[in-house]
Amino acid sequence: MELKASQIALETGGIFQDSDDIVINSVSKLEEGQNGSLGFFANLKYEKALYSSECSVVFVPSDFVPTQTCSAKLIKHANPYFAFCTILAKYFDPNEKKIGVEHSSFIHPTAFIGQNVYVGHHVTIEENVIIGNNCQIESGTYVGKNSKISDNSKIYANVSIYSGTIIGKNCIIHSGTVIGSDGFGFAPIGGKYVKIPQVGIVTLEDDVEIGANCAIDRATMGTTIIKRGTKLDNLVQIAHNVELGTDIVIASQTGIAGSTKVGNNSAFGGQVGIVGHITIAENTSVGAQAGITQSIKEPGQKLSGTPATDVNTYLRGVIGSRKISDIIKEVAELKREIALLKGK
Amino acid sequence: MELKASQIALETGGIFQDSDDIVINSVSKLEEGQNGSLGFFANLKYEKALYSSECSVVFVPSDFVPTQTCSAKLIKHANPYFAFCTILAKYFDPNEKKIGVEHSSFIHPTAFIGQNVYVGHHVTIEENVIIGNNCQIESGTYVGKNSKISDNSKIYANVSIYSGTIIGKNCIIHSGTVIGSDGFGFAPIGGKYVKIPQVGIVTLEDDVEIGANCAIDRATMGTTIIKRGTKLDNLVQIAHNVELGTDIVIASQTGIAGSTKVGNNSAFGGQVGIVGHITIAENTSVGAQAGITQSIKEPGQKLSGTPATDVNTYLRGVIGSRKISDIIKEVAELKREIALLKGK
Amino acid sequence: MELKASQIALETGGIFQDSDDIVINSVSKLEEGQNGSLGFFANLKYEKALYSSECSVVFVPSDFVPTQTCSAKLIKHANPYFAFCTILAKYFDPNEKKIGVEHSSFIHPTAFIGQNVYVGHHVTIEENVIIGNNCQIESGTYVGKNSKISDNSKIYANVSIYSGTIIGKNCIIHSGTVIGSDGFGFAPIGGKYVKIPQVGIVTLEDDVEIGANCAIDRATMGTTIIKRGTKLDNLVQIAHNVELGTDIVIASQTGIAGSTKVGNNSAFGGQVGIVGHITIAENTSVGAQAGITQSIKEPGQKLSGTPATDVNTYLRGVIGSRKISDIIKEVAELKREIALLKGK
Repeated sequence: MELKASQIALETGGIFQDSDDIVINSVSKLEEGQNGSLGFFANLKYEKALYSSECSVVFVPSDFVPTQTCSAKLIKHANPYFAFCTILAKYFDPNEKKIGVEHSSFIHPTAFIGQNVYVGHHVTIEENVIIGNNCQIESGTYVGKNSKISDNSKIYANVSIYSGTIIGKNCIIHSGTVIGSDGFGFAPIGGKYVKIPQVGIVTLEDDVEIGANCAIDRATMGTTIIKRGTKLDNLVQIAHNVELGTDIVIASQTGIAGSTKVGNNSAFGGQVGIVGHITIAENTSVGAQAGITQSIKEPGQKLSGTPATDVNTYLRGVIGSRKISDIIKEVAELKREIALLKGK
Repeated sequence: MELKASQIALETGGIFQDSDDIVINSVSKLEEGQNGSLGFFANLKYEKALYSSECSVVFVPSDFVPTQTCSAKLIKHANPYFAFCTILAKYFDPNEKKIGVEHSSFIHPTAFIGQNVYVGHHVTIEENVIIGNNCQIESGTYVGKNSKISDNSKIYANVSIYSGTIIGKNCIIHSGTVIGSDGFGFAPIGGKYVKIPQVGIVTLEDDVEIGANCAIDRATMGTTIIKRGTKLDNLVQIAHNVELGTDIVIASQTGIAGSTKVGNNSAFGGQVGIVGHITIAENTSVGAQAGITQSIKEPGQKLSGTPATDVNTYLRGVIGSRKISDIIKEVAELKREIALLKGK
Repeated sequence: MELKASQIALETGGIFQDSDDIVINSVSKLEEGQNGSLGFFANLKYEKALYSSECSVVFVPSDFVPTQTCSAKLIKHANPYFAFCTILAKYFDPNEKKIGVEHSSFIHPTAFIGQNVYVGHHVTIEENVIIGNNCQIESGTYVGKNSKISDNSKIYANVSIYSGTIIGKNCIIHSGTVIGSDGFGFAPIGGKYVKIPQVGIVTLEDDVEIGANCAIDRATMGTTIIKRGTKLDNLVQIAHNVELGTDIVIASQTGIAGSTKVGNNSAFGGQVGIVGHITIAENTSVGAQAGITQSIKEPGQKLSGTPATDVNTYLRGVIGSRKISDIIKEVAELKREIALLKGK
């Protein structure tokens, strides 16, 4: 991919005024720049990196005036990072769109495939599946019967989508993820576990992204649901009947147990554990490795630790616990002194 | 699927005496009931939900007499929940049984396929594999050579079963799970890690269920074994040479390190970690996120925390640690007072 | 597989002097020995196990002289365990090498396939992929365009390798693992998350082994890199732009957040969490379930707990925290006594 600086400026609404219309063929951070790479500079804190960068072309803020010499050619833009991302997405996306149905895929005759769809090699699409327009279903993916994948969604390779799953528009599902596996429901009867049938489904609303190797269980009845705009990192566990609100972010290896409801705009660090059957208020922020053991009623809290408490209490507890052996010694010393005083 | 109330009663051994033989076409909880849905009512605590439910038909206990008007038609049954689950499993299973071998699957000529088996699209079944009667091997699954899957087992899509794996009767393996990958065994030699060959196998006994995206490693020698009736949730890690007893339940994202033995009827919350080479007594119950660092000798304990201790000690520790900063202040105050007393 | 004791001795450079050239057909630990099995005895602490073993043939140290009768025939060797592993790897490897391209695989015409390669059933190999000599690509695996897999590497079934991935020589990737999925990068704009394009790649150097169902994200720009000789267990998460040094071992379910750099020869227990954008010094050793929240500057430390500290501080904290309720009582008692003293 080769792009002229003038073209980049034109396409992003930036301003390029150098007479030397240089060509770029890669993208990079300023520090990792090299001949032919496009970079961006958005934060004045990193101004030094601009002057030492070997990038050929760099987006800079509209009102920026260099105070030192700078080998890169500059494109001025109101939002340099946004402009840079636009070029990345348009010209450097490593997973660009394909169209067509590979002949080794299996599509059941009752399935409906929209326009401009790609169905990869060794894909299986079962009875009554609906695949919307502009969808990309990569190689090795399985889509169980009665599922629906809406327009513009991308499912990467080797994803497993169980029957009845509903996926909204503009969703992205990364490889190895499983959607619609049975919830972990068993009735203990006479020392054995009898399986409780899991007959519900999973629903992902629009603009949801799910990372690699996640597991999202179908509801026992009804639906497990992930609402509009929510993003999951890799290896996340979502149990049966969980309800995730809109615009939530959940980092890798976090697990949410059955029937828990999470409020909109919440954010979870990695390896967080959340028990079942609780409700977490909107806009809750949870630190990595925390364990949430009861409902969070007040919105907007920042929580950490297990059982999770507000960050400040948690940090005081951590600092304190590292002082315990000192305290034990001090208390023993106080005892001795009191004994002495009493003896007087 | 449409079912008459009289038929439901007949098939489950319940009693339906209404002259209006209403038809249901879905199942739901009482609270989520709607016209045409079948529900159940088993616990008197939730009696209100029955009266306000929009379910058309509801299983109720044999001796139940409504004390308010109730729009649902009632089927009386000795065990309403069990009866309800029976109908779920028989008529609303989203993964119903199929029979036949899809033409895009590969079955090695030396493999043996039993009767009434389903082999999905793009399945690979290698040399000398034995698939028992009534098994379901869903699309994209790989079964390595010399493996055996016994009668009535169901393997969902995109499962990877390495060579030599033995799977018992009535087992269920969810998508993305890997069985028989190499144990994590390396000998550090001169600062590098040299691979120790992992030549053992994995054995699952009858009635085992494994969730989605689990990893169960083959033994270095001998076998990693999961005994009859044990159930694993999603994303669980079972290392080489682990032995799990019968009727154990393990929640999501728990990991068990190499050669550890777990006693029958134990239960583990999510994200528990268990070190290698220890033995855990029967009927041990472990809270979520606990870390078990040594053998548990006394059966029947309830453990929590890291390192795991009995729940009460753990809870006292948690409460105490949140008070540490107060204690530090109090100890400082006591010191001052003693100094004053000594000065007198 | 049947092997004579004399042949085993010859191939490993051991000494077998018994006139009865017994045949073995399996391998086992001494304790699990049976007629026909080969074992090893390397540590004098386990001498008893040798005398009671039912193994037919056992490797023993060159200078070992039995002090009791022993039914097994002995092969003397300078390094019995190494010799034993050599036989395991050569004759009992359950995943032995295959050659050829299965007809149900898809290989893009622009891909280059080296010599003595195996490409399994339902494999997909996209545009411009390079597969080196002696590679094994097992069934159901997906290799995205422009990827390179170097000589002698083995990719097990149902692995997903995204476009642009570079894999070195002698690497092993276990089933279900995903390499090159998008990093978890979003810009919060007006309460919604806008995807930041992830256009970098993943690089694995030579001799890297990755367990089952891991997730290794591509870099935002540049490359996520795992250097020579590093080994990952199952279900490990490596985020975008992480750099792992050489000869690192990482146990199961550990997660490393974005842009963190880990020094050579470090070792991590299971379920460890490491925050993003930090640097961990060489030769750091981290206990299971620890949480590393800041850079580790001094090499060679042993760390535990969350936030991770040196093991001794951690252990004192654990012991102390279990004594907190006693201390609270003692402090209350001291207060009372001081009040009494003051009253005097």
